[in-house]
Amino acid sequence: MARRTGRRPGNQGTREAILDAARAAFAERGFDAASIRAIAGTAGVDPALVHHYFGSKDQLFLAAMNFPVDPGEVVPRVLAGGQDGIGERLVRTFLGVWDSPVGGAGVALLRSAVSNEWTARLLREFITTQVLRRVLDQLEVDPVELPLRGSLVATQLIGLGMMRHVIRLEPVASTDPETLVAAIGPTVQRYLTGSLST
Amino acid sequence: MARRTGRRPGNQGTREAILDAARAAFAERGFDAASIRAIAGTAGVDPALVHHYFGSKDQLFLAAMNFPVDPGEVVPRVLAGGQDGIGERLVRTFLGVWDSPVGGAGVALLRSAVSNEWTARLLREFITTQVLRRVLDQLEVDPVELPLRGSLVATQLIGLGMMRHVIRLEPVASTDPETLVAAIGPTVQRYLTGSLST
Repeated sequence: MARRTGRRPGNQGTREAILDAARAAFAERGFDAASIRAIAGTAGVDPALVHHYFGSKDQLFLAAMNFPVDPGEVVPRVLAGGQDGIGERLVRTFLGVWDSPVGGAGVALLRSAVSNEWTARLLREFITTQVLRRVLDQLEVDPVELPLRGSLVATQLIGLGMMRHVIRLEPVASTDPETLVAAIGPTVQRYLTGSLST
Repeated sequence: MARRTGRRPGNQGTREAILDAARAAFAERGFDAASIRAIAGTAGVDPALVHHYFGSKDQLFLAAMNFPVDPGEVVPRVLAGGQDGIGERLVRTFLGVWDSPVGGAGVALLRSAVSNEWTARLLREFITTQVLRRVLDQLEVDPVELPLRGSLVATQLIGLGMMRHVIRLEPVASTDPETLVAAIGPTVQRYLTGSLST
Protein backbone atom coordinates (compact mmCIF):
# COMPACT_ATOMS: atom_id res chain seq x y z
CA MET A 1 0.00 0.00 0.00
CA ALA A 2 1.25 3.47 -0.78
CA ARG A 3 2.46 5.44 2.26
CA ARG A 4 2.25 9.17 2.62
CA THR A 5 5.56 10.86 2.17
CA GLY A 6 4.88 14.30 3.62
CA ARG A 7 3.99 15.49 7.07
CA ARG A 8 1.32 18.05 6.32
CA PRO A 9 -2.12 16.98 7.60
CA GLY A 10 -3.77 17.35 4.19
CA ASN A 11 -1.51 14.93 2.30
CA GLN A 12 -3.10 11.66 3.32
CA GLY A 13 -6.58 13.04 2.67
CA THR A 14 -5.54 14.24 -0.77
CA ARG A 15 -3.98 10.89 -1.67
CA GLU A 16 -7.09 9.03 -0.54
CA ALA A 17 -9.33 11.40 -2.49
CA ILE A 18 -7.30 10.74 -5.62
CA LEU A 19 -7.39 6.96 -5.06
CA ASP A 20 -11.15 7.03 -4.46
CA ALA A 21 -11.66 9.01 -7.66
CA ALA A 22 -9.36 6.61 -9.52
CA ARG A 23 -11.22 3.52 -8.33
CA ALA A 24 -14.54 5.05 -9.39
CA ALA A 25 -13.19 6.08 -12.80
CA PHE A 26 -11.47 2.74 -13.56
CA ALA A 27 -14.54 0.75 -12.50
CA GLU A 28 -17.10 2.94 -14.25
CA ARG A 29 -15.27 3.88 -17.45
CA GLY A 30 -12.61 1.18 -17.71
CA PHE A 31 -8.85 1.69 -17.59
CA ASP A 32 -8.45 2.95 -21.15
CA ALA A 33 -11.26 5.51 -21.04
CA ALA A 34 -10.43 6.84 -17.58
CA SER A 35 -8.17 9.91 -17.70
CA ILE A 36 -5.82 11.34 -15.12
CA ARG A 37 -7.33 14.73 -15.87
CA ALA A 38 -10.86 13.59 -15.05
CA ILE A 39 -9.69 11.72 -11.93
CA ALA A 40 -7.87 14.84 -10.75
CA GLY A 41 -11.01 16.86 -11.40
CA THR A 42 -13.15 14.52 -9.29
CA ALA A 43 -10.59 14.66 -6.49
CA GLY A 44 -10.38 18.44 -6.74
CA VAL A 45 -6.64 18.56 -7.39
CA ASP A 46 -4.34 19.48 -10.23
CA PRO A 47 -3.45 16.61 -12.64
CA ALA A 48 0.22 17.35 -11.98
CA LEU A 49 -0.31 16.39 -8.35
CA VAL A 50 -1.70 12.99 -9.40
CA HIS A 51 1.42 12.38 -11.47
CA HIS A 52 3.59 13.65 -8.62
CA TYR A 53 2.03 11.26 -6.11
CA PHE A 54 1.46 8.18 -8.25
CA GLY A 55 3.44 8.43 -11.50
CA SER A 56 1.80 6.93 -14.59
CA LYS A 57 -1.82 5.87 -15.06
CA ASP A 58 -0.67 2.26 -14.77
CA GLN A 59 0.94 3.01 -11.42
CA LEU A 60 -2.12 4.92 -10.22
CA PHE A 61 -4.19 1.85 -11.07
CA LEU A 62 -1.89 -0.43 -9.03
CA ALA A 63 -2.09 1.97 -6.08
CA ALA A 64 -5.88 2.16 -6.40
CA MET A 65 -6.04 -1.66 -6.34
CA ASN A 66 -3.62 -1.87 -3.37
CA PHE A 67 -1.65 -4.21 -5.60
CA PRO A 68 1.91 -4.66 -4.37
CA VAL A 69 3.46 -6.09 -7.54
CA ASP A 70 3.86 -4.17 -10.79
CA PRO A 71 3.01 -6.38 -13.77
CA GLY A 72 4.87 -3.83 -15.86
CA GLU A 73 8.05 -5.09 -14.21
CA VAL A 74 7.16 -8.76 -13.79
CA VAL A 75 5.59 -9.58 -17.15
CA PRO A 76 8.63 -8.58 -19.26
CA ARG A 77 10.65 -11.21 -17.40
CA VAL A 78 8.03 -13.80 -18.37
CA LEU A 79 8.19 -12.66 -21.98
CA ALA A 80 11.98 -12.77 -22.16
CA GLY A 81 12.82 -16.04 -23.86
CA GLY A 82 10.05 -15.85 -26.42
CA GLN A 83 7.01 -18.02 -26.96
CA ASP A 84 8.66 -21.34 -26.10
CA GLY A 85 8.10 -22.13 -22.45
CA ILE A 86 6.06 -18.98 -21.84
CA GLY A 87 3.32 -21.08 -20.21
CA GLU A 88 5.70 -22.53 -17.61
CA ARG A 89 7.31 -19.15 -16.96
CA LEU A 90 3.92 -17.51 -16.48
CA VAL A 91 2.78 -20.18 -14.00
CA ARG A 92 6.14 -20.00 -12.16
CA THR A 93 5.91 -16.21 -11.90
CA PHE A 94 2.25 -16.32 -10.84
CA LEU A 95 3.05 -18.84 -8.08
CA GLY A 96 6.10 -16.83 -7.05
CA VAL A 97 3.95 -13.76 -6.41
CA TRP A 98 1.04 -15.59 -4.76
CA ASP A 99 3.28 -17.78 -2.59
CA SER A 100 5.27 -14.73 -1.40
CA PRO A 101 4.37 -12.43 1.51
CA VAL A 102 2.59 -10.06 -0.87
CA GLY A 103 0.30 -12.86 -2.07
CA GLY A 104 -2.18 -11.88 0.61
CA ALA A 105 -3.06 -8.88 -1.55
CA GLY A 106 -4.17 -11.24 -4.31
CA VAL A 107 -6.30 -13.23 -1.89
CA ALA A 108 -7.86 -10.03 -0.56
CA LEU A 109 -8.54 -8.83 -4.09
CA LEU A 110 -10.23 -12.10 -5.06
CA ARG A 111 -12.33 -12.09 -1.89
CA SER A 112 -13.47 -8.57 -2.55
CA ALA A 113 -14.13 -9.13 -6.26
CA VAL A 114 -16.31 -12.14 -5.55
CA SER A 115 -18.66 -10.23 -3.27
CA ASN A 116 -18.51 -6.77 -4.81
CA GLU A 117 -19.35 -5.96 -8.44
CA TRP A 118 -17.31 -2.78 -8.29
CA THR A 119 -14.15 -4.65 -7.32
CA ALA A 120 -14.99 -7.34 -9.87
CA ARG A 121 -14.92 -4.65 -12.56
CA LEU A 122 -11.57 -3.39 -11.29
CA LEU A 123 -10.22 -6.93 -11.27
CA ARG A 124 -11.40 -7.50 -14.85
CA GLU A 125 -9.70 -4.28 -15.93
CA PHE A 126 -6.57 -5.26 -14.01
CA ILE A 127 -6.35 -8.74 -15.54
CA THR A 128 -7.02 -7.43 -19.02
CA THR A 129 -4.97 -4.24 -19.18
CA GLN A 130 -2.14 -4.89 -16.74
CA VAL A 131 -1.41 -8.58 -17.27
CA LEU A 132 -3.01 -10.17 -20.33
CA ARG A 133 -2.50 -7.27 -22.75
CA ARG A 134 1.22 -7.22 -22.01
CA VAL A 135 1.49 -10.96 -22.65
CA LEU A 136 -0.81 -11.20 -25.64
CA ASP A 137 0.84 -8.32 -27.50
CA GLN A 138 3.95 -10.46 -27.85
CA LEU A 139 2.35 -13.60 -29.27
CA GLU A 140 2.56 -14.62 -32.91
CA VAL A 141 -0.98 -15.94 -33.22
CA ASP A 142 -4.17 -14.84 -34.97
CA PRO A 143 -5.12 -11.53 -33.30
CA VAL A 144 -8.79 -12.48 -33.51
CA GLU A 145 -8.13 -15.31 -31.05
CA LEU A 146 -6.27 -13.21 -28.48
CA PRO A 147 -9.20 -12.23 -26.23
CA LEU A 148 -10.35 -15.85 -25.85
CA ARG A 149 -6.78 -17.07 -25.32
CA GLY A 150 -6.27 -14.46 -22.63
CA SER A 151 -9.45 -15.24 -20.77
CA LEU A 152 -8.71 -18.99 -20.89
CA VAL A 153 -5.37 -18.29 -19.23
CA ALA A 154 -7.24 -16.27 -16.61
CA THR A 155 -9.58 -19.19 -15.87
CA GLN A 156 -6.62 -21.47 -15.16
CA LEU A 157 -4.49 -19.02 -13.17
CA ILE A 158 -7.30 -17.53 -11.09
CA GLY A 159 -8.57 -21.07 -10.45
CA LEU A 160 -5.07 -22.02 -9.29
CA GLY A 161 -4.93 -19.00 -6.96
CA MET A 162 -8.42 -19.77 -5.66
CA MET A 163 -7.74 -23.43 -4.92
CA ARG A 164 -4.22 -23.00 -3.58
CA HIS A 165 -4.69 -19.87 -1.48
CA VAL A 166 -8.38 -19.18 -0.85
CA ILE A 167 -10.27 -22.50 -0.76
CA ARG A 168 -7.01 -24.36 0.05
CA LEU A 169 -7.90 -27.69 -1.48
CA GLU A 170 -5.23 -30.31 -0.88
CA PRO A 171 -2.91 -31.39 -2.32
CA VAL A 172 -2.78 -28.38 -4.65
CA ALA A 173 -2.66 -26.05 -1.65
CA SER A 174 0.72 -27.37 -0.53
CA THR A 175 2.26 -29.03 -3.61
CA ASP A 176 5.73 -27.69 -4.39
CA PRO A 177 5.61 -24.95 -7.06
CA GLU A 178 7.69 -26.77 -9.68
CA THR A 179 5.30 -29.73 -9.70
CA LEU A 180 2.52 -27.28 -10.46
CA VAL A 181 4.62 -25.50 -13.08
CA ALA A 182 5.19 -28.84 -14.84
CA ALA A 183 1.51 -29.80 -14.64
CA ILE A 184 -0.15 -26.45 -15.43
CA GLY A 185 2.50 -24.81 -17.62
CA PRO A 186 1.53 -26.84 -20.71
CA THR A 187 -2.10 -25.81 -20.23
CA VAL A 188 -1.23 -22.11 -20.25
CA GLN A 189 1.14 -22.68 -23.17
CA ARG A 190 -1.64 -24.27 -25.23
CA TYR A 191 -4.12 -21.53 -24.33
CA LEU A 192 -1.58 -18.91 -25.47
CA THR A 193 -0.07 -20.48 -28.58
CA GLY A 194 -1.62 -23.89 -29.29
CA SER A 195 -4.78 -25.16 -30.95
CA LEU A 196 -8.01 -24.34 -29.14
CA SER A 197 -10.18 -26.77 -31.06
CA THR A 198 -10.20 -30.54 -31.11
CA MET B 1 -33.61 -26.39 -1.56
CA ALA B 2 -35.52 -29.03 0.33
CA ARG B 3 -39.09 -28.06 1.17
CA ARG B 4 -40.96 -29.21 4.21
CA THR B 5 -43.49 -31.88 3.47
CA GLY B 6 -45.65 -31.77 6.62
CA ARG B 7 -47.90 -29.15 8.12
CA ARG B 8 -47.06 -29.43 11.80
CA PRO B 9 -45.34 -26.31 13.16
CA GLY B 10 -42.35 -28.27 14.44
CA ASN B 11 -41.32 -29.79 11.10
CA GLN B 12 -39.45 -26.86 9.62
CA GLY B 13 -37.61 -26.22 12.88
CA THR B 14 -36.60 -29.87 13.10
CA ARG B 15 -35.34 -29.93 9.52
CA GLU B 16 -33.33 -26.76 10.08
CA ALA B 17 -31.87 -28.15 13.32
CA ILE B 18 -30.75 -31.27 11.44
CA LEU B 19 -29.25 -29.20 8.60
CA ASP B 20 -27.42 -26.94 11.07
CA ALA B 21 -26.00 -29.98 12.85
CA ALA B 22 -25.03 -31.52 9.52
CA ARG B 23 -23.18 -28.40 8.33
CA ALA B 24 -21.27 -28.23 11.61
CA ALA B 25 -20.38 -31.93 11.49
CA PHE B 26 -19.32 -31.96 7.83
CA ALA B 27 -17.21 -28.81 8.26
CA GLU B 28 -15.60 -29.84 11.55
CA ARG B 29 -15.08 -33.57 11.06
CA GLY B 30 -15.22 -33.95 7.28
CA PHE B 31 -17.77 -35.88 5.27
CA ASP B 32 -16.36 -39.35 5.93
CA ALA B 33 -15.98 -38.97 9.69
CA ALA B 34 -19.33 -37.27 10.23
CA SER B 35 -22.07 -39.75 11.17
CA ILE B 36 -25.83 -39.53 10.82
CA ARG B 37 -26.08 -40.78 14.40
CA ALA B 38 -23.95 -37.94 15.77
CA ILE B 39 -25.75 -35.35 13.62
CA ALA B 40 -29.09 -36.63 14.90
CA GLY B 41 -27.76 -36.44 18.45
CA THR B 42 -26.71 -32.82 18.03
CA ALA B 43 -30.10 -31.96 16.55
CA GLY B 44 -31.90 -33.85 19.34
CA VAL B 45 -33.75 -36.21 17.01
CA ASP B 46 -33.76 -39.90 16.22
CA PRO B 47 -31.36 -40.95 13.42
CA ALA B 48 -34.31 -42.56 11.65
CA LEU B 49 -35.89 -39.13 11.31
CA VAL B 50 -32.75 -37.83 9.55
CA HIS B 51 -33.00 -40.67 7.05
CA HIS B 52 -36.73 -40.06 6.70
CA TYR B 53 -36.26 -36.39 5.90
CA PHE B 54 -33.08 -36.47 3.84
CA GLY B 55 -32.29 -40.03 2.73
CA SER B 56 -28.59 -40.97 2.56
CA LYS B 57 -25.63 -39.12 4.05
CA ASP B 58 -24.76 -37.93 0.53
CA GLN B 59 -28.24 -36.48 0.13
CA LEU B 60 -28.09 -34.87 3.57
CA PHE B 61 -24.83 -33.22 2.53
CA LEU B 62 -26.41 -31.83 -0.66
CA ALA B 63 -29.34 -30.47 1.36
CA ALA B 64 -26.97 -28.93 3.92
CA MET B 65 -25.07 -27.22 1.08
CA ASN B 66 -28.31 -26.04 -0.58
CA PHE B 67 -26.91 -27.72 -3.68
CA PRO B 68 -29.61 -28.30 -6.29
CA VAL B 69 -27.82 -30.88 -8.43
CA ASP B 70 -26.92 -34.38 -7.26
CA PRO B 71 -23.41 -35.32 -8.46
CA GLY B 72 -24.43 -38.92 -7.72
CA GLU B 73 -26.77 -38.65 -10.70
CA VAL B 74 -24.74 -36.36 -12.95
CA VAL B 75 -21.24 -37.84 -12.63
CA PRO B 76 -22.18 -41.34 -13.83
CA ARG B 77 -23.32 -39.80 -17.12
CA VAL B 78 -19.87 -38.19 -17.46
CA LEU B 79 -18.21 -41.52 -16.74
CA ALA B 80 -20.31 -43.44 -19.24
CA GLY B 81 -18.14 -43.82 -22.31
CA GLY B 82 -14.94 -44.50 -20.44
CA GLN B 83 -11.73 -42.54 -20.17
CA ASP B 84 -11.65 -41.30 -23.76
CA GLY B 85 -13.26 -37.88 -23.96
CA ILE B 86 -13.96 -37.76 -20.23
CA GLY B 87 -12.36 -34.28 -20.08
CA GLU B 88 -14.72 -32.84 -22.66
CA ARG B 89 -17.74 -34.52 -21.09
CA LEU B 90 -16.81 -33.20 -17.66
CA VAL B 91 -16.44 -29.62 -18.95
CA ARG B 92 -19.70 -29.91 -20.93
CA THR B 93 -21.57 -31.18 -17.87
CA PHE B 94 -20.01 -28.55 -15.59
CA LEU B 95 -21.03 -25.77 -18.00
CA GLY B 96 -24.49 -27.30 -18.40
CA VAL B 97 -25.10 -27.05 -14.66
CA TRP B 98 -23.52 -23.60 -14.18
CA ASP B 99 -25.21 -22.11 -17.25
CA SER B 100 -28.62 -23.44 -16.15
CA PRO B 101 -31.06 -21.71 -13.78
CA VAL B 102 -29.62 -23.68 -10.84
CA GLY B 103 -26.13 -22.33 -11.56
CA GLY B 104 -26.84 -19.47 -9.17
CA ALA B 105 -26.39 -21.95 -6.34
CA GLY B 106 -22.84 -22.56 -7.49
CA VAL B 107 -22.14 -18.84 -7.62
CA ALA B 108 -23.61 -18.38 -4.13
CA LEU B 109 -21.53 -21.28 -2.83
CA LEU B 110 -18.31 -19.84 -4.28
CA ARG B 111 -19.09 -16.38 -2.90
CA SER B 112 -19.68 -17.80 0.55
CA ALA B 113 -16.65 -20.11 0.48
CA VAL B 114 -14.34 -17.24 -0.44
CA SER B 115 -15.33 -15.15 2.56
CA ASN B 116 -16.09 -17.84 5.12
CA GLU B 117 -13.66 -20.56 6.22
CA TRP B 118 -16.51 -22.75 7.38
CA THR B 119 -18.13 -22.77 3.93
CA ALA B 120 -14.69 -23.21 2.36
CA ARG B 121 -14.32 -26.44 4.34
CA LEU B 122 -17.74 -27.61 3.19
CA LEU B 123 -16.84 -26.76 -0.41
CA ARG B 124 -13.57 -28.70 -0.14
CA GLU B 125 -15.45 -31.70 1.24
CA PHE B 126 -18.07 -31.33 -1.48
CA ILE B 127 -15.56 -31.16 -4.33
CA THR B 128 -13.56 -34.06 -2.95
CA THR B 129 -16.22 -36.52 -1.80
CA GLN B 130 -19.16 -35.73 -4.06
CA VAL B 131 -17.47 -34.95 -7.36
CA LEU B 132 -13.79 -35.88 -7.63
CA ARG B 133 -13.93 -39.18 -5.76
CA ARG B 134 -16.66 -40.43 -8.09
CA VAL B 135 -14.61 -39.50 -11.15
CA LEU B 136 -11.20 -40.58 -9.91
CA ASP B 137 -12.38 -44.01 -8.77
CA GLN B 138 -12.99 -44.88 -12.41
CA LEU B 139 -9.60 -43.90 -13.83
CA GLU B 140 -6.91 -46.38 -14.81
CA VAL B 141 -3.96 -44.34 -13.56
CA ASP B 142 -1.47 -44.61 -10.70
CA PRO B 143 -3.58 -44.24 -7.53
CA VAL B 144 -0.78 -42.22 -5.92
CA GLU B 145 -1.38 -39.46 -8.48
CA LEU B 146 -5.15 -39.28 -8.01
CA PRO B 147 -5.31 -36.53 -5.37
CA LEU B 148 -3.12 -34.18 -7.39
CA ARG B 149 -5.00 -34.99 -10.60
CA GLY B 150 -8.28 -34.26 -8.88
CA SER B 151 -7.21 -30.95 -7.43
CA LEU B 152 -5.75 -29.84 -10.78
CA VAL B 153 -9.15 -30.49 -12.36
CA ALA B 154 -10.67 -28.40 -9.57
CA THR B 155 -8.35 -25.47 -10.32
CA GLN B 156 -9.45 -25.41 -13.95
CA LEU B 157 -13.18 -25.94 -13.40
CA ILE B 158 -13.56 -23.60 -10.43
CA GLY B 159 -11.50 -21.03 -12.33
CA LEU B 160 -13.87 -21.43 -15.27
CA GLY B 161 -16.89 -20.97 -13.00
CA MET B 162 -15.27 -17.95 -11.36
CA MET B 163 -14.38 -16.19 -14.60
CA ARG B 164 -17.55 -17.03 -16.50
CA HIS B 165 -20.14 -16.51 -13.76
CA VAL B 166 -18.68 -14.51 -10.86
CA ILE B 167 -15.99 -12.15 -12.21
CA ARG B 168 -17.54 -12.33 -15.71
CA LEU B 169 -14.43 -11.68 -17.73
CA GLU B 170 -15.13 -11.41 -21.44
CA PRO B 171 -15.06 -13.19 -23.78
CA VAL B 172 -15.12 -16.31 -21.57
CA ALA B 173 -18.23 -15.04 -19.81
CA SER B 174 -20.33 -15.26 -22.97
CA THR B 175 -18.48 -17.67 -25.28
CA ASP B 176 -20.70 -20.53 -26.46
CA PRO B 177 -20.26 -23.66 -24.34
CA GLU B 178 -18.95 -25.92 -27.11
CA THR B 179 -16.07 -23.55 -27.85
CA LEU B 180 -15.10 -23.80 -24.19
CA VAL B 181 -15.54 -27.59 -24.22
CA ALA B 182 -13.13 -27.84 -27.16
CA ALA B 183 -10.60 -25.49 -25.55
CA ILE B 184 -10.73 -26.68 -21.93
CA GLY B 185 -11.72 -30.34 -22.39
CA PRO B 186 -8.17 -31.39 -23.37
CA THR B 187 -6.82 -29.68 -20.25
CA VAL B 188 -9.11 -31.67 -17.97
CA GLN B 189 -8.38 -34.83 -19.96
CA ARG B 190 -4.64 -34.41 -19.43
CA TYR B 191 -5.06 -33.66 -15.73
CA LEU B 192 -7.12 -36.85 -15.36
CA THR B 193 -5.27 -39.32 -17.57
CA GLY B 194 -2.22 -37.70 -19.20
CA SER B 195 1.34 -36.91 -18.20
CA LEU B 196 1.70 -34.29 -15.47
CA SER B 197 5.42 -33.70 -15.94
CA THR B 198 7.29 -32.17 -18.83
